[in-house]
Amino acid sequence: MDSHLPEPEPLRALIDALRRLPGVGVRSARRMAYHLMQHDLAGAQLLSHALTGALQDLRHCRMCNSFAEEDICPTCVNPKRDASVLCVVETPADQNMIESSHGYRGLYYVLMGRLAPLEGVGPQALKFDRLLERASDGVVKEVILATNFTAEGETTAHYLSDMLTERGLSVTRLARGVPAGSELEYVDAGTIAWALMERRKA
Amino acid sequence: MDSHLPEPEPLRALIDALRRLPGVGVRSARRMAYHLMQHDLAGAQLLSHALTGALQDLRHCRMCNSFAEEDICPTCVNPKRDASVLCVVETPADQNMIESSHGYRGLYYVLMGRLAPLEGVGPQALKFDRLLERASDGVVKEVILATNFTAEGETTAHYLSDMLTERGLSVTRLARGVPAGSELEYVDAGTIAWALMERRKA
Repeated sequence: MDSHLPEPEPLRALIDALRRLPGVGVRSARRMAYHLMQHDLAGAQLLSHALTGALQDLRHCRMCNSFAEEDICPTCVNPKRDASVLCVVETPADQNMIESSHGYRGLYYVLMGRLAPLEGVGPQALKFDRLLERASDGVVKEVILATNFTAEGETTAHYLSDMLTERGLSVTRLARGVPAGSELEYVDAGTIAWALMERRKA
Repeated sequence: MDSHLPEPEPLRALIDALRRLPGVGVRSARRMAYHLMQHDLAGAQLLSHALTGALQDLRHCRMCNSFAEEDICPTCVNPKRDASVLCVVETPADQNMIESSHGYRGLYYVLMGRLAPLEGVGPQALKFDRLLERASDGVVKEVILATNFTAEGETTAHYLSDMLTERGLSVTRLARGVPAGSELEYVDAGTIAWALMERRKA
């Protein structure tokens, strides 16, 4: 005797497909499928359409490599932005965080990933040659490396720094230090060590 | 100046649609959308198809009310199952748990929900008349109420118990007590109280 009841094929297929979403295991996928099929058929319809729409209409901006509907995204064509500075981030989410700091008026380049040799993600997979070409347009003077401060983000920054400095570009990295509003007692030792090393005149 | 960069419309639509999934907030939805569009276009295609397929082909079994491809599901037509016992559960997931206990050979009725007056889910929404009709087929002798042991599951069980007992059916409820394999020290007091009240001859 099978310990599970046979699941109808369309339901099983839906559960399997939902498991492809990041962070979704078989239990969550089943709960999502039950929810959609029992309580939100309109939501299921909507999601199906949205997926088709995104697959059809979404592309990468030719300049910044972020998601865009157009050949070149509205940020890259905005004449009010400073085209001499290029900020390199891992994802559109990171780009949004920088934008929401209101501290940056230059342009962006979105890697859509980071170097992760263990996962087989190398310079080719991230199309570093496209970034090199973008940064070598003669207008860009400074490249700010704003990849994450994780092992993989740091590796990516080091690699890009070497590659871009060779081309005569000024390459900078986001400052490391104590987060705004934090109490030293609760900041990790590594951060304190960095903040000490990179201390500046008050 | 807007603190967020404009998001391409197809991407925004996809993120909104993903948020309809239970337990998915805007951050997860964005992460899922980025993942699908950047790293798993095949998965996005698959999910879109699976949703369409499920919307088209999935219905409710005429007998047990669970999801099925057929008019009557394979479990309900299985002649090896004992048609005189009907086990009432809230969801197909609960049904699977009971099935995997290898302790039940009767049939099921899946409510696809539970009474939740605060959410406006009453006897009509759960189509209790369908269950009543199903249980009154002359073959069913005993109805086992296996709704959850939560406030809402208990309310549902009480309500169903009254309704079904009136029809002359034998109505039972899953036993409450100390979970198998557990140490008393770590069992909550409510469970211990129940286990004491419902103690049985050793």
